[in-house]
Amino acid sequence: MGKNIVVGQSGGPTAVINSSVAGVYSQAKKLGIDKVFGMVHGIEGFLEDKICDLDDYLATSTGVEMLKRTPSAFLGSCRFKMPKIEGNEEVYEKIFEVMEKHDIEYLFYCGGNDSMDTVKMLSDYAAAHGKSQRFVGVPKTIDNDLPITDHCPGYGSAAKYIATSLKEIIRDNSSFGAKKPTICIVEIMGRNAGWLTAAAALSKTVDCEGPDAIYLPERVFDMDKFVDKVKELAASKSSVVIAVSEGVKIADGRYVCEIGREVAVDAFGHKQMSGTAVKLAELIAEKTGYKTRAIEFSTLQRAATHIASLTDINEAFQVGADAVKAADEGKTAMMITLDRNGENPYQCGTSAHDIHDIANVERKVPDEWITPDGCGLTDDFERYARPLIMGELTPLYTDGLPAHLVRKES
Amino acid sequence: MGKNIVVGQSGGPTAVINSSVAGVYSQAKKLGIDKVFGMVHGIEGFLEDKICDLDDYLATSTGVEMLKRTPSAFLGSCRFKMPKIEGNEEVYEKIFEVMEKHDIEYLFYCGGNDSMDTVKMLSDYAAAHGKSQRFVGVPKTIDNDLPITDHCPGYGSAAKYIATSLKEIIRDNSSFGAKKPTICIVEIMGRNAGWLTAAAALSKTVDCEGPDAIYLPERVFDMDKFVDKVKELAASKSSVVIAVSEGVKIADGRYVCEIGREVAVDAFGHKQMSGTAVKLAELIAEKTGYKTRAIEFSTLQRAATHIASLTDINEAFQVGADAVKAADEGKTAMMITLDRNGENPYQCGTSAHDIHDIANVERKVPDEWITPDGCGLTDDFERYARPLIMGELTPLYTDGLPAHLVRKES
Repeated sequence: MGKNIVVGQSGGPTAVINSSVAGVYSQAKKLGIDKVFGMVHGIEGFLEDKICDLDDYLATSTGVEMLKRTPSAFLGSCRFKMPKIEGNEEVYEKIFEVMEKHDIEYLFYCGGNDSMDTVKMLSDYAAAHGKSQRFVGVPKTIDNDLPITDHCPGYGSAAKYIATSLKEIIRDNSSFGAKKPTICIVEIMGRNAGWLTAAAALSKTVDCEGPDAIYLPERVFDMDKFVDKVKELAASKSSVVIAVSEGVKIADGRYVCEIGREVAVDAFGHKQMSGTAVKLAELIAEKTGYKTRAIEFSTLQRAATHIASLTDINEAFQVGADAVKAADEGKTAMMITLDRNGENPYQCGTSAHDIHDIANVERKVPDEWITPDGCGLTDDFERYARPLIMGELTPLYTDGLPAHLVRKES
Repeated sequence: MGKNIVVGQSGGPTAVINSSVAGVYSQAKKLGIDKVFGMVHGIEGFLEDKICDLDDYLATSTGVEMLKRTPSAFLGSCRFKMPKIEGNEEVYEKIFEVMEKHDIEYLFYCGGNDSMDTVKMLSDYAAAHGKSQRFVGVPKTIDNDLPITDHCPGYGSAAKYIATSLKEIIRDNSSFGAKKPTICIVEIMGRNAGWLTAAAALSKTVDCEGPDAIYLPERVFDMDKFVDKVKELAASKSSVVIAVSEGVKIADGRYVCEIGREVAVDAFGHKQMSGTAVKLAELIAEKTGYKTRAIEFSTLQRAATHIASLTDINEAFQVGADAVKAADEGKTAMMITLDRNGENPYQCGTSAHDIHDIANVERKVPDEWITPDGCGLTDDFERYARPLIMGELTPLYTDGLPAHLVRKES
């Protein structure tokens, strides 16, 4: 009987999370691993023994290429928090039982902070109970907030979508050149870390002036100063476009989007953000009388594989492949990190890092990359982020639309 | 002294409105016309003698190709309603004065219903005052609501963006396969005509089930039936995605988005729509407790040139070119129409049609193309719309982003 492995996807999808599955699969087959299983809906589905055999989809190179072009979690995702080991041993035993049933020796989990906690908990349990199975995390998050790694697969594509769409929005907003200013407020994901909102700065190029102000959650948001800033901008130009993080908070700690209303909470206790741009647009309309428009990129910023970054796709594939290599070399309780080795030209390698340094740690935008006025990003940020959005992978168009690979529900 | 012409852009931008300017320019140069001027911000700018010389941008084929890849109105747009001739002769005289000053013999105006009214008024004035200048309308509107023409340039690209994004959203929404349903409501432009919202049906392909329900403004919207429909859908599937027009109205004639709040009005007396999806998501959350998400495509659906339809780009170019031909053949008071000549393969020609049959007439989705339950589109609609989204024009990427042509402010 051969050696088998399993890969799962967890948390919010990204445009390239499936490239990591393709990387895991391709490297495993190179190493002669027998079966590469996919968890259907992450560890939550795995607990119910819901798996699929990736040979059914990826045995041909066409399958791998289609998977790279498929948005959202091909295997299905979940938001499942592993309980404390003590008192919940049956949950862990169940996972190892399913692994043993299918001769699974390595488990790979693609995700962000919460998912890396799952890798940590499982490898801690294995270490404490003398289990030989290995656990390696594959980084994935549009939020780009994992520590140690230079950046996270998923971020580059979200950043490319944000910058591309902002260029188009800035163009659109300026088309009327009205005597009365039009203020467009664009809300971008990122609950606590402003990496995605910072990507708005990348829309500033030789043919685009970029947004007029960018507000990250790393700085306290001041409603009065915001109104003053808009008035100041509108005094000299008729089209004003402002990028704002969904997670901006005022001085008393409340999110802007929860002022005056209740906000739902998810399985991890995270508040469901939304409505920040609408709230600010209403404020501006009320205080200035200017025409306003609120735009929320919503899930498109994590799902727009049609304009994914090729750099990101390749790196997502690489971290998946290198996770398999690491496990096969005997490593466990690790996450693969991306390590920037060169700037000009940009070069990036990988290594494996202890999961305990990573799980549950959130990395924010460095303070020195935010301009002194708190409404912009420095050139250092651009030097960091620009290489991550480079390159494209042409979709396969059928019926006039990008084609995706479909998992059959069993 | 040579013969000159002028072209203007008016109303909401589209992804391909600039291809029509490229078509006007290219055909004019073929015919030996001397100067091709662009109105800066439409007829409103023209009244102030604001024009540019398109040779400055389009004299090379690279310029023309870049213009085809540039979103929003390159020349600048306006929302200017021509006043009644009687009592406002000075406005008309001013326009003819500017035309005569620059030896402009033909005027081309790219726009939708309101803009075609401008063409009608100007040609009526010319006819009444023995003026020899000619006026030809170039159709443009994402709304696809101009009569006579088979469809409108701008619609195919907006439809392609909507269907592409919906495929990605449907994928994303289904990633969690939660026990508790997730209801995603997507708001699409179209104040009175449901063509854009209908394009949501195009996302149904071999690899995508499409939205679960589609609500057009052509039918009265019933809040209670809507809630029942969502409950019925959620009983059998965990991911429910619904497309809804921003312009849906309840039985008493109010827009859904204006229930409980005031809505601003533009220069033409059109209400500024927005907030329909949020309103309906709140309703569903309140009545069912399901997790909901509201997405508005907003201006991206008219600005996303990076995923424009090549068919649309080519047809937009063609109507611009054929407007010049028509004027040069002596025609005036006309709009160029697209005439479908073949289905399989799709073929489309153009002709010139009397502007008086077109201006201020709004064409809606035929009742027989809406399914009996009022929540979907028939195969006939798909046969009509699918050819319009076919083909792509690869953007020129610089700095990792689609590059655009920039007009220099004078």
